[in-house]
Amino acid sequence: MSKKGILYLIPALIGDSPTDFALPASTQAVVNDIRFYAVENLRSARRFLSKLKISTPINELEFAELNKRTPSNEVETILAQLLNGSNVGVISEAGCPGVADPGASIVSLAHDKGIRVVPMVGPSSILLALMASGMNGQNFVFHGYLPKEKHKRIKSIVEVEKMAYDLNQTQIFMEAPYRNMPLVEDVIKHCNEETRLCVATSITSSDERIVTRTIAQWRKNIPNINKKPTIFLLSS
Amino acid sequence: MSKKGILYLIPALIGDSPTDFALPASTQAVVNDIRFYAVENLRSARRFLSKLKISTPINELEFAELNKRTPSNEVETILAQLLNGSNVGVISEAGCPGVADPGASIVSLAHDKGIRVVPMVGPSSILLALMASGMNGQNFVFHGYLPKEKHKRIKSIVEVEKMAYDLNQTQIFMEAPYRNMPLVEDVIKHCNEETRLCVATSITSSDERIVTRTIAQWRKNIPNINKKPTIFLLSS
Repeated sequence: MSKKGILYLIPALIGDSPTDFALPASTQAVVNDIRFYAVENLRSARRFLSKLKISTPINELEFAELNKRTPSNEVETILAQLLNGSNVGVISEAGCPGVADPGASIVSLAHDKGIRVVPMVGPSSILLALMASGMNGQNFVFHGYLPKEKHKRIKSIVEVEKMAYDLNQTQIFMEAPYRNMPLVEDVIKHCNEETRLCVATSITSSDERIVTRTIAQWRKNIPNINKKPTIFLLSS
Repeated sequence: MSKKGILYLIPALIGDSPTDFALPASTQAVVNDIRFYAVENLRSARRFLSKLKISTPINELEFAELNKRTPSNEVETILAQLLNGSNVGVISEAGCPGVADPGASIVSLAHDKGIRVVPMVGPSSILLALMASGMNGQNFVFHGYLPKEKHKRIKSIVEVEKMAYDLNQTQIFMEAPYRNMPLVEDVIKHCNEETRLCVATSITSSDERIVTRTIAQWRKNIPNINKKPTIFLLSS
């Protein structure tokens, strides 16, 4: 049997920071050797690869789109590349493939086929927010998106706050940026005065702002985070 | 009032990989401008800084140790530097400050004083393991260490497995490397055959190995991870 390829998980930029702020130099070297990519979005992946200044012209690379609409035969094509000995790079629209992003399914299939999976270092807004929150990093949970519907969202906020106290566990969640304001207003309205909320906005961008305050303090000064990518963290 | 300094959170290397595999080039530029460090361990922080090849001789830098034994007046010294306008770098023994590591307390105090906190990109074994596991990255929890005592540990493993199914949530935990074998043996013995376990060992090192298998598959081939830094992930 021929040698199998490696599935490289390549984090993309999440803010407007230059590549050398967010990615190790060796990522470029790894990317230079990859001809086949599984990407969440073709256009943003091409733009990202051209920022990395790789030596191969981008129109000589092969791309397969990997998202909710990907048919299973496309996934088979990607696996075939790996089984035939070619390395494949996975690139999501922003941040780390597989973390609050598509990509996990191809990784899972790769494990089933005995293909080696190598994660590359890069920016994760969840991890950077947790580091900078000053909250408990020994025990934390990421919930993804809370419910959109107001009534369910408020119920969920109250449950999440209770877990922060009962388990001494940092609670991390996010929202589509254009719905940030209703979410943060509900958090500030419905949590206890002494609960701590970290609002981590535009991480790795020039307008990055990561601030932890008590709910009582936030009530005096609601943050303006409309349409800005934000991670929310709650703690006792 | 004079301008306050910035508290930079600087990830350290976690494996034997070269710095340009694990850290963005700009980390070196940021570090070049810092004279004062709050570090988990003096010796490893000095070793790390010398690998970064910064321009200031290391014996011209100031260090404060920041760990469980740090007296509160030492913490005051660090805060005073920041309030006086000097930047301070936080470096933990390995990986990202504040994530499964000390560092959160100084960050929390910095927020209280209105000091800006900037997290730098770098390697986190937890995040890299999650990316490479192929498991659910939309909903996950990190438990830190499970109980050491055998009876309590088994109870905890069973509870953690139940959460993986009930919440469709990836369960992440770790152990002191010399206790890896009793832990992984208990996980393999007490979880369901179809439960998936990812064993992510020596991340970013030359012997990195990240493998996801069902418990049934692991039972045929117990991984040898004695004394190797490992992250464990469980999923339905």
